Amino acid sequence: MNQVLEQLHQRKSVRVYEDRPISPADKEAILAAACAAPTAGNQQLYTILDITDQALKDRLADTCDHQPFIARAPLVLIFCADCQKWYDAFASGGCLPRKPGVGDLLLACSDANIAAQNAVTAAWSLGIGSCYIGDVMELCETHRELLGLPEYVFPAAMLVFGYPTPQQQEREKPRRRAMEHIVHQNRYRRMDGAELEAMLADNAGERPYGAWLQAFCNRKYNSDFSREMTRSVGEYLKPFLD
Amino acid sequence: MNQVLEQLHQRKSVRVYEDRPISPADKEAILAAACAAPTAGNQQLYTILDITDQALKDRLADTCDHQPFIARAPLVLIFCADCQKWYDAFASGGCLPRKPGVGDLLLACSDANIAAQNAVTAAWSLGIGSCYIGDVMELCETHRELLGLPEYVFPAAMLVFGYPTPQQQEREKPRRRAMEHIVHQNRYRRMDGAELEAMLADNAGERPYGAWLQAFCNRKYNSDFSREMTRSVGEYLKPFLD
Repeated sequence: MNQVLEQLHQRKSVRVYEDRPISPADKEAILAAACAAPTAGNQQLYTILDITDQALKDRLADTCDHQPFIARAPLVLIFCADCQKWYDAFASGGCLPRKPGVGDLLLACSDANIAAQNAVTAAWSLGIGSCYIGDVMELCETHRELLGLPEYVFPAAMLVFGYPTPQQQEREKPRRRAMEHIVHQNRYRRMDGAELEAMLADNAGERPYGAWLQAFCNRKYNSDFSREMTRSVGEYLKPFLD
Repeated sequence: MNQVLEQLHQRKSVRVYEDRPISPADKEAILAAACAAPTAGNQQLYTILDITDQALKDRLADTCDHQPFIARAPLVLIFCADCQKWYDAFASGGCLPRKPGVGDLLLACSDANIAAQNAVTAAWSLGIGSCYIGDVMELCETHRELLGLPEYVFPAAMLVFGYPTPQQQEREKPRRRAMEHIVHQNRYRRMDGAELEAMLADNAGERPYGAWLQAFCNRKYNSDFSREMTRSVGEYLKPFLD
Protein backbone atom coordinates (compact mmCIF):
# COMPACT_ATOMS: atom_id res chain seq x y z
CA MET A 1 0.00 0.00 0.00
CA ASN A 2 1.50 3.36 -1.00
CA GLN A 3 1.77 6.29 1.41
CA VAL A 4 -1.28 8.11 0.06
CA LEU A 5 -3.51 5.04 0.43
CA GLU A 6 -2.12 4.37 3.90
CA GLN A 7 -2.99 7.87 5.00
CA LEU A 8 -6.50 7.72 3.54
CA HIS A 9 -7.07 4.55 5.56
CA GLN A 10 -5.52 5.85 8.77
CA ARG A 11 -7.31 9.19 8.81
CA LYS A 12 -10.04 9.30 11.44
CA SER A 13 -12.08 12.10 12.99
CA VAL A 14 -10.32 14.00 15.75
CA ARG A 15 -12.37 15.97 18.28
CA VAL A 16 -9.83 16.69 21.03
CA TYR A 17 -6.87 18.90 20.18
CA GLU A 18 -3.60 19.82 21.77
CA ASP A 19 -3.37 23.43 22.87
CA ARG A 20 -1.09 24.29 19.96
CA PRO A 21 -1.71 26.60 17.02
CA ILE A 22 -1.57 25.60 13.37
CA SER A 23 1.20 27.58 11.67
CA PRO A 24 0.31 30.05 8.91
CA ALA A 25 2.31 27.90 6.45
CA ASP A 26 0.34 24.76 7.33
CA LYS A 27 -2.97 26.62 7.16
CA GLU A 28 -1.97 27.96 3.76
CA ALA A 29 -1.09 24.43 2.62
CA ILE A 30 -4.48 23.11 3.75
CA LEU A 31 -6.34 25.91 1.95
CA ALA A 32 -4.23 25.56 -1.19
CA ALA A 33 -4.88 21.80 -1.35
CA ALA A 34 -8.61 22.47 -1.00
CA CYS A 35 -8.50 24.89 -3.92
CA ALA A 36 -6.52 22.41 -6.02
CA ALA A 37 -9.42 19.93 -5.83
CA PRO A 38 -11.49 18.99 -8.87
CA THR A 39 -14.22 21.56 -9.55
CA ALA A 40 -17.00 21.60 -12.15
CA GLY A 41 -15.79 23.46 -15.22
CA ASN A 42 -12.95 24.98 -13.13
CA GLN A 43 -15.57 27.27 -11.57
CA GLN A 44 -14.78 26.76 -7.86
CA LEU A 45 -18.44 26.96 -6.92
CA TYR A 46 -17.57 27.52 -3.26
CA THR A 47 -16.34 30.14 -0.84
CA ILE A 48 -14.37 29.15 2.24
CA LEU A 49 -15.02 31.08 5.45
CA ASP A 50 -11.97 31.13 7.69
CA ILE A 51 -13.38 31.58 11.20
CA THR A 52 -10.71 33.36 13.25
CA ASP A 53 -12.93 35.51 15.49
CA GLN A 54 -13.10 33.74 18.87
CA ALA A 55 -16.55 35.13 19.67
CA LEU A 56 -17.85 33.68 16.41
CA LYS A 57 -16.22 30.30 17.15
CA ASP A 58 -17.88 30.33 20.57
CA ARG A 59 -21.23 31.07 18.98
CA LEU A 60 -20.82 28.30 16.38
CA ALA A 61 -19.83 25.85 19.12
CA ASP A 62 -23.26 26.58 20.56
CA THR A 63 -25.37 26.78 17.38
CA CYS A 64 -23.79 23.62 15.92
CA ASP A 65 -25.47 21.27 18.39
CA HIS A 66 -23.55 22.49 21.46
CA GLN A 67 -20.11 21.02 20.78
CA PRO A 68 -17.58 22.97 22.86
CA PHE A 69 -14.56 21.44 21.08
CA ILE A 70 -15.42 23.64 18.07
CA ALA A 71 -14.56 26.75 20.12
CA ARG A 72 -11.18 25.31 21.06
CA ALA A 73 -10.13 24.23 17.56
CA PRO A 74 -7.19 26.26 16.22
CA LEU A 75 -8.63 26.21 12.68
CA VAL A 76 -12.30 26.35 11.70
CA LEU A 77 -13.32 26.46 8.03
CA ILE A 78 -16.81 26.60 6.56
CA PHE A 79 -17.10 25.48 2.93
CA CYS A 80 -20.07 27.28 1.40
CA ALA A 81 -21.74 26.14 -1.81
CA ASP A 82 -21.69 29.46 -3.66
CA CYS A 83 -24.21 30.11 -6.43
CA GLN A 84 -24.04 33.84 -5.73
CA LYS A 85 -20.66 34.89 -7.06
CA TRP A 86 -21.06 33.60 -10.63
CA TYR A 87 -24.63 34.87 -10.72
CA ASP A 88 -23.34 38.29 -9.61
CA ALA A 89 -20.48 38.17 -12.14
CA PHE A 90 -22.89 37.29 -14.96
CA ALA A 91 -25.39 39.95 -13.86
CA SER A 92 -22.80 42.72 -13.42
CA GLY A 93 -21.35 41.76 -16.83
CA GLY A 94 -24.76 42.19 -18.47
CA CYS A 95 -25.30 38.47 -19.29
CA LEU A 96 -28.93 38.18 -18.13
CA PRO A 97 -28.36 34.99 -16.10
CA ARG A 98 -31.33 32.85 -15.02
CA LYS A 99 -31.86 32.57 -11.23
CA PRO A 100 -29.84 29.75 -9.62
CA GLY A 101 -31.85 26.56 -9.19
CA VAL A 102 -31.52 23.41 -7.10
CA GLY A 103 -29.34 21.74 -9.72
CA ASP A 104 -26.85 24.59 -9.43
CA LEU A 105 -26.99 24.26 -5.66
CA LEU A 106 -26.30 20.52 -5.68
CA LEU A 107 -23.41 20.96 -8.11
CA ALA A 108 -21.95 23.67 -5.87
CA CYS A 109 -22.40 21.41 -2.80
CA SER A 110 -20.38 18.74 -4.63
CA ASP A 111 -17.62 21.24 -5.36
CA ALA A 112 -17.60 22.39 -1.73
CA ASN A 113 -17.41 18.90 -0.26
CA ILE A 114 -14.78 17.74 -2.73
CA ALA A 115 -12.62 20.74 -1.77
CA ALA A 116 -13.27 20.07 1.92
CA GLN A 117 -12.10 16.49 1.62
CA ASN A 118 -8.84 17.64 0.02
CA ALA A 119 -8.37 19.90 3.04
CA VAL A 120 -8.89 16.89 5.33
CA THR A 121 -6.36 14.77 3.44
CA ALA A 122 -3.82 17.60 3.29
CA ALA A 123 -4.16 18.29 7.01
CA TRP A 124 -3.69 14.63 7.94
CA SER A 125 -0.46 14.52 5.89
CA LEU A 126 0.79 17.36 8.12
CA GLY A 127 -0.15 15.52 11.32
CA ILE A 128 -3.29 17.64 11.76
CA GLY A 129 -6.62 16.02 12.62
CA SER A 130 -10.06 17.22 11.55
CA CYS A 131 -13.74 16.68 12.09
CA TYR A 132 -16.74 17.45 9.88
CA ILE A 133 -19.58 19.30 11.60
CA GLY A 134 -22.79 18.57 9.69
CA ASP A 135 -24.74 20.73 12.16
CA VAL A 136 -23.71 23.85 10.24
CA MET A 137 -26.68 23.03 7.96
CA GLU A 138 -29.05 23.54 10.92
CA LEU A 139 -30.54 26.84 12.11
CA CYS A 140 -30.64 28.47 8.68
CA GLU A 141 -31.85 31.84 9.94
CA THR A 142 -29.17 32.04 12.66
CA HIS A 143 -26.29 30.91 10.45
CA ARG A 144 -27.31 33.20 7.56
CA GLU A 145 -27.16 36.12 9.98
CA LEU A 146 -23.97 35.06 11.81
CA LEU A 147 -22.03 34.34 8.62
CA GLY A 148 -23.61 37.01 6.43
CA LEU A 149 -24.75 34.53 3.79
CA PRO A 150 -26.72 35.96 0.84
CA GLU A 151 -29.65 33.96 -0.51
CA TYR A 152 -27.69 31.83 -2.99
CA VAL A 153 -24.97 30.71 -0.55
CA PHE A 154 -25.37 27.53 1.52
CA PRO A 155 -22.98 26.30 4.27
CA ALA A 156 -22.32 22.83 2.84
CA ALA A 157 -19.54 21.65 5.16
CA MET A 158 -17.81 22.81 8.29
CA LEU A 159 -14.43 21.46 9.30
CA VAL A 160 -12.50 21.94 12.50
CA PHE A 161 -8.80 21.12 12.69
CA GLY A 162 -6.16 20.63 15.35
CA TYR A 163 -3.32 18.43 16.52
CA PRO A 164 -4.69 15.20 18.01
CA THR A 165 -4.02 14.50 21.67
CA PRO A 166 -2.25 11.16 22.41
CA GLN A 167 -5.61 9.70 23.48
CA GLN A 168 -7.12 10.68 20.12
CA GLN A 169 -4.15 9.28 18.25
CA GLU A 170 -4.69 5.91 19.89
CA ARG A 171 -8.46 5.82 19.46
CA GLU A 172 -9.50 3.06 17.09
CA LYS A 173 -11.08 4.16 13.81
CA PRO A 174 -14.66 2.88 13.61
CA ARG A 175 -14.99 0.01 11.14
CA ARG A 176 -16.95 0.52 7.93
CA ARG A 177 -19.59 -1.83 6.50
CA ALA A 178 -18.56 -4.81 4.35
CA MET A 179 -18.01 -3.78 0.75
CA GLU A 180 -20.67 -6.14 -0.65
CA HIS A 181 -23.39 -4.01 0.95
CA ILE A 182 -21.93 -0.70 -0.20
CA VAL A 183 -20.88 -1.49 -3.78
CA HIS A 184 -23.68 -2.73 -6.04
CA GLN A 185 -23.19 -4.02 -9.58
CA ASN A 186 -24.64 -1.80 -12.33
CA ARG A 187 -28.03 -1.19 -10.74
CA TYR A 188 -29.15 -0.30 -7.23
CA ARG A 189 -30.08 -3.40 -5.27
CA ARG A 190 -32.60 -2.60 -2.55
CA MET A 191 -31.59 -4.65 0.49
CA ASP A 192 -34.13 -6.60 2.54
CA GLY A 193 -34.35 -6.64 6.33
CA ALA A 194 -32.07 -9.66 6.67
CA GLU A 195 -29.28 -8.14 4.57
CA LEU A 196 -29.61 -4.80 6.35
CA GLU A 197 -29.30 -6.59 9.68
CA ALA A 198 -26.24 -8.46 8.43
CA MET A 199 -24.74 -5.16 7.24
CA LEU A 200 -25.29 -3.49 10.61
CA ALA A 201 -24.53 -6.42 12.93
CA ASP A 202 -21.04 -5.10 13.56
CA ASN A 203 -22.44 -1.71 14.64
CA ALA A 204 -24.80 -3.34 17.12
CA GLY A 205 -21.88 -5.30 18.56
CA GLU A 206 -22.81 -7.10 21.79
CA ARG A 207 -26.22 -5.42 22.01
CA PRO A 208 -29.39 -7.08 20.65
CA TYR A 209 -29.86 -5.75 17.10
CA GLY A 210 -33.41 -4.46 17.57
CA ALA A 211 -32.61 -2.52 20.73
CA TRP A 212 -29.44 -1.04 19.24
CA LEU A 213 -31.29 -0.04 16.05
CA GLN A 214 -34.10 1.65 17.98
CA ALA A 215 -31.64 3.59 20.12
CA PHE A 216 -29.61 4.61 17.06
CA CYS A 217 -32.75 5.71 15.20
CA ASN A 218 -33.87 7.79 18.18
CA ARG A 219 -30.45 9.38 18.56
CA LYS A 220 -29.46 9.99 14.94
CA TYR A 221 -32.61 10.13 12.86
CA ASN A 222 -35.87 10.67 14.74
CA SER A 223 -33.99 13.16 16.93
CA ASP A 224 -34.53 16.91 17.26
CA PHE A 225 -31.22 17.91 15.61
CA SER A 226 -31.96 15.73 12.62
CA ARG A 227 -35.49 17.13 12.20
CA GLU A 228 -34.06 20.62 12.60
CA MET A 229 -31.49 19.95 9.88
CA THR A 230 -34.18 18.97 7.43
CA ARG A 231 -36.34 21.98 8.34
CA SER A 232 -33.34 24.29 8.04
CA VAL A 233 -32.17 22.91 4.69
CA GLY A 234 -35.73 23.42 3.46
CA GLU A 235 -35.34 27.12 4.36
CA TYR A 236 -31.99 27.36 2.57
CA LEU A 237 -33.57 25.75 -0.49
CA LYS A 238 -36.43 28.23 -0.84
CA PRO A 239 -34.60 30.81 -2.99
CA PHE A 240 -33.47 28.00 -5.30
CA LEU A 241 -36.98 26.62 -5.71
CA ASP A 242 -38.69 29.92 -6.61
CA MET B 1 5.83 19.81 0.18
CA ASN B 2 5.14 16.22 1.24
CA GLN B 3 4.10 13.51 -1.22
CA VAL B 4 0.40 13.69 -0.35
CA LEU B 5 0.26 17.46 -0.88
CA GLU B 6 2.21 17.14 -4.12
CA GLN B 7 -0.26 14.62 -5.46
CA LEU B 8 -3.28 16.70 -4.46
CA HIS B 9 -1.79 19.59 -6.42
CA GLN B 10 -0.78 17.54 -9.45
CA ARG B 11 -4.06 15.71 -9.85
CA LYS B 12 -6.07 16.98 -12.80
CA SER B 13 -9.07 15.68 -14.70
CA VAL B 14 -8.29 13.01 -17.29
CA ARG B 15 -10.72 12.37 -20.14
CA VAL B 16 -8.65 10.28 -22.56
CA TYR B 17 -7.50 6.87 -21.42
CA GLU B 18 -5.06 4.26 -22.60
CA ASP B 19 -6.67 1.07 -23.80
CA ARG B 20 -5.63 -0.79 -20.67
CA PRO B 21 -7.77 -2.28 -17.92
CA ILE B 22 -7.58 -1.36 -14.24
CA SER B 23 -6.56 -4.45 -12.29
CA PRO B 24 -9.00 -5.95 -9.76
CA ALA B 25 -6.50 -5.13 -6.99
CA ASP B 26 -6.32 -1.46 -7.98
CA LYS B 27 -10.10 -1.24 -8.32
CA GLU B 28 -10.44 -2.77 -4.87
CA ALA B 29 -7.93 -0.24 -3.49
CA ILE B 30 -9.90 2.67 -5.00
CA LEU B 31 -13.19 1.40 -3.56
CA ALA B 32 -11.64 0.66 -0.16
CA ALA B 33 -10.18 4.17 0.05
CA ALA B 34 -13.60 5.62 -0.82
CA CYS B 35 -15.19 3.64 2.00
CA ALA B 36 -12.46 4.72 4.45
CA ALA B 37 -13.52 8.37 3.98
CA PRO B 38 -15.14 10.40 6.76
CA THR B 39 -18.88 9.73 6.99
CA ALA B 40 -21.54 11.31 9.20
CA GLY B 41 -21.95 9.19 12.34
CA ASN B 42 -20.14 6.31 10.57
CA GLN B 43 -23.34 5.74 8.60
CA GLN B 44 -21.93 5.61 5.04
CA LEU B 45 -24.96 7.39 3.62
CA TYR B 46 -24.08 6.30 0.09
CA THR B 47 -24.16 3.35 -2.26
CA ILE B 48 -21.58 3.00 -5.01
CA LEU B 49 -22.75 1.60 -8.34
CA ASP B 50 -19.95 -0.18 -10.17
CA ILE B 51 -20.92 0.07 -13.86
CA THR B 52 -19.40 -2.94 -15.61
CA ASP B 53 -22.10 -3.62 -18.19
CA GLN B 54 -20.86 -2.18 -21.50
CA ALA B 55 -24.37 -1.53 -22.78
CA LEU B 56 -25.09 0.53 -19.67
CA LYS B 57 -21.81 2.46 -20.06
CA ASP B 58 -22.77 3.19 -23.67
CA ARG B 59 -26.15 4.44 -22.55
CA LEU B 60 -24.65 6.66 -19.82
CA ALA B 61 -22.16 8.08 -22.32
CA ASP B 62 -25.22 9.25 -24.22
CA THR B 63 -27.49 10.35 -21.35
CA CYS B 64 -24.65 12.22 -19.57
CA ASP B 65 -24.46 15.01 -22.14
CA HIS B 66 -23.12 12.83 -24.99
CA GLN B 67 -19.56 12.23 -23.81
CA PRO B 68 -18.24 9.14 -25.62
CA PHE B 69 -15.14 8.85 -23.41
CA ILE B 70 -17.43 7.59 -20.62
CA ALA B 71 -18.13 4.43 -22.65
CA ARG B 72 -14.42 3.77 -23.10
CA ALA B 73 -13.41 4.26 -19.45
CA PRO B 74 -12.23 1.02 -17.82
CA LEU B 75 -13.86 1.97 -14.51
CA VAL B 76 -17.12 3.86 -14.01
CA LEU B 77 -18.49 4.46 -10.51
CA ILE B 78 -21.67 6.29 -9.50
CA PHE B 79 -21.78 7.53 -5.91
CA CYS B 80 -25.41 7.67 -4.84
CA ALA B 81 -26.59 9.66 -1.84
CA ASP B 82 -28.59 6.91 -0.13
CA CYS B 83 -31.40 7.83 2.27
CA GLN B 84 -33.18 4.59 1.44
CA LYS B 85 -31.12 1.93 3.17
CA TRP B 86 -31.21 3.36 6.70
CA TYR B 87 -34.88 4.22 6.28
CA ASP B 88 -35.52 0.62 5.22
CA ALA B 89 -33.41 -0.73 8.10
CA PHE B 90 -35.29 1.40 10.62
CA ALA B 91 -38.67 0.49 9.09
CA SER B 92 -37.94 -3.24 8.89
CA GLY B 93 -36.67 -3.10 12.50
CA GLY B 94 -39.96 -1.55 13.67
CA CYS B 95 -38.50 1.89 14.54
CA LEU B 96 -41.23 4.05 12.92
CA PRO B 97 -38.75 6.34 11.12
CA ARG B 98 -39.92 9.70 9.75
CA LYS B 99 -39.71 10.10 5.95
CA PRO B 100 -36.30 11.28 4.72
CA GLY B 101 -36.19 15.06 4.16
CA VAL B 102 -33.94 17.44 2.25
CA GLY B 103 -31.56 17.76 5.20
CA ASP B 104 -31.00 14.01 5.11
CA LEU B 105 -30.45 14.23 1.37
CA LEU B 106 -27.85 17.00 1.62
CA LEU B 107 -26.01 15.16 4.40
CA ALA B 108 -25.97 12.02 2.25
CA CYS B 109 -24.72 14.04 -0.75
CA SER B 110 -21.84 15.25 1.42
CA ASP B 111 -21.00 11.69 2.40
CA ALA B 112 -21.13 10.57 -1.24
CA ASN B 113 -18.88 13.35 -2.53
CA ILE B 114 -16.39 12.99 0.30
CA ALA B 115 -16.10 9.27 -0.47
CA ALA B 116 -15.81 10.04 -4.19
CA GLN B 117 -12.93 12.44 -3.62
CA ASN B 118 -11.06 9.76 -1.64
CA ALA B 119 -11.49 7.50 -4.68
CA VAL B 120 -10.00 10.21 -6.90
CA THR B 121 -6.99 10.70 -4.61
CA ALA B 122 -6.44 6.96 -4.24
CA ALA B 123 -6.61 6.42 -8.00
CA TRP B 124 -4.11 9.20 -8.72
CA SER B 125 -1.65 7.63 -6.27
CA LEU B 126 -1.86 4.49 -8.42
CA GLY B 127 -1.23 6.43 -11.65
CA ILE B 128 -4.91 6.32 -12.58
CA GLY B 129 -6.69 9.43 -13.78
CA SER B 130 -10.34 10.33 -13.22
CA CYS B 131 -13.04 12.76 -14.21
CA TYR B 132 -16.24 13.81 -12.42
CA ILE B 133 -19.38 13.73 -14.57
CA GLY B 134 -21.91 16.15 -13.07
CA ASP B 135 -24.36 15.30 -15.85
CA VAL B 136 -25.44 12.19 -13.93
CA MET B 137 -27.77 14.57 -12.03
CA GLU B 138 -29.63 15.31 -15.29
CA LEU B 139 -32.49 13.30 -16.79
CA CYS B 140 -33.89 12.12 -13.47
CA GLU B 141 -36.56 9.89 -14.99
CA THR B 142 -34.09 8.17 -17.35
CA HIS B 143 -31.38 7.64 -14.75
CA ARG B 144 -33.83 6.39 -12.11
CA GLU B 145 -34.96 3.76 -14.59
CA LEU B 146 -31.52 2.86 -15.96
CA LEU B 147 -29.91 2.53 -12.52
CA GLY B 148 -32.94 1.21 -10.64
CA LEU B 149 -32.92 4.03 -8.10
CA PRO B 150 -35.71 4.00 -5.48
CA GLU B 151 -37.23 7.32 -4.45
CA TYR B 152 -34.78 8.15 -1.65
CA VAL B 153 -31.59 7.51 -3.67
CA PHE B 154 -29.94 10.32 -5.66
CA PRO B 155 -26.93 9.99 -8.03
CA ALA B 156 -24.69 12.58 -6.39
CA ALA B 157 -21.45 11.97 -8.28
CA MET B 158 -20.22 9.95 -11.21
CA LEU B 159 -16.55 9.21 -11.71
CA VAL B 160 -14.79 7.64 -14.66
CA PHE B 161 -11.26 6.33 -14.33
CA GLY B 162 -8.45 5.20 -16.60
CA TYR B 163 -4.76 5.49 -17.31
CA PRO B 164 -3.96 8.89 -18.85
CA THR B 165 -2.55 8.97 -22.37
CA PRO B 166 0.82 10.78 -22.75
CA GLN B 167 -1.03 13.79 -24.19
CA GLN B 168 -3.26 13.91 -21.08
CA GLN B 169 -0.27 13.56 -18.80
CA GLU B 170 1.31 16.62 -20.36
CA ARG B 171 -1.81 18.74 -20.41
CA GLU B 172 -1.50 21.72 -18.10
CA LYS B 173 -3.83 21.77 -15.09
CA PRO B 174 -6.16 24.80 -15.30
CA ARG B 175 -5.19 27.47 -12.80
CA ARG B 176 -7.51 28.24 -9.88
CA ARG B 177 -8.61 31.69 -8.71
CA ALA B 178 -6.41 33.71 -6.34
CA MET B 179 -6.99 32.68 -2.73
CA GLU B 180 -8.11 36.17 -1.60
CA HIS B 181 -11.31 35.79 -3.64
CA ILE B 182 -12.05 32.26 -2.43
CA VAL B 183 -11.22 32.49 1.28
CA HIS B 184 -13.15 35.14 3.22
CA GLN B 185 -12.51 36.08 6.84
CA ASN B 186 -15.28 35.12 9.29
CA ARG B 187 -18.22 36.39 7.23
CA TYR B 188 -19.18 36.09 3.60
CA ARG B 189 -18.01 39.12 1.64
CA ARG B 190 -20.17 39.72 -1.40
CA MET B 191 -17.85 40.76 -4.22
CA ASP B 192 -18.62 43.70 -6.48
CA GLY B 193 -18.30 43.71 -10.28
CA ALA B 194 -14.73 45.01 -10.21
CA GLU B 195 -13.50 42.30 -7.83
CA LEU B 196 -15.36 39.61 -9.76
CA GLU B 197 -13.69 40.81 -12.96
CA ALA B 198 -10.29 40.77 -11.23
CA MET B 199 -11.00 37.23 -9.99
CA LEU B 200 -11.93 36.00 -13.48
CA ALA B 201 -9.40 37.97 -15.55
CA ASP B 202 -7.13 34.93 -15.78
CA ASN B 203 -9.99 32.80 -17.15
CA ALA B 204 -10.73 35.36 -19.86
CA GLY B 205 -7.06 35.37 -20.81
CA GLU B 206 -6.44 37.25 -24.07
CA ARG B 207 -10.15 37.67 -24.80
CA PRO B 208 -12.07 40.83 -23.81
CA TYR B 209 -13.64 40.10 -20.40
CA GLY B 210 -17.23 40.92 -21.38
CA ALA B 211 -17.21 38.73 -24.48
CA TRP B 212 -15.57 35.85 -22.65
CA LEU B 213 -18.07 36.12 -19.77
CA GLN B 214 -21.07 36.16 -22.11
CA ALA B 215 -19.79 33.10 -23.98
CA PHE B 216 -19.06 31.28 -20.73
CA CYS B 217 -22.50 32.13 -19.34
CA ASN B 218 -24.16 30.87 -22.52
CA ARG B 219 -22.15 27.65 -22.52
CA LYS B 220 -22.13 26.76 -18.80
CA TYR B 221 -25.08 28.42 -17.16
CA ASN B 222 -27.83 29.65 -19.46
CA SER B 223 -27.34 26.46 -21.50
CA ASP B 224 -29.76 23.59 -22.03
CA PHE B 225 -27.77 21.04 -20.02
CA SER B 226 -27.60 23.37 -17.05
CA ARG B 227 -31.33 24.13 -17.13
CA GLU B 228 -32.00 20.41 -17.50
CA MET B 229 -29.85 19.68 -14.44
CA THR B 230 -31.87 22.05 -12.32
CA ARG B 231 -35.17 20.66 -13.62
CA SER B 232 -33.96 17.12 -13.00
CA VAL B 233 -32.68 17.76 -9.49
CA GLY B 234 -36.08 19.30 -8.75
CA GLU B 235 -37.63 15.95 -9.74
CA TYR B 236 -35.21 14.01 -7.54
CA LEU B 237 -36.06 16.33 -4.66
CA LYS B 238 -39.82 15.81 -4.78
CA PRO B 239 -39.98 12.73 -2.51
CA PHE B 240 -37.81 14.57 0.04
CA LEU B 241 -40.04 17.64 0.04
CA ASP B 242 -43.35 15.81 0.56
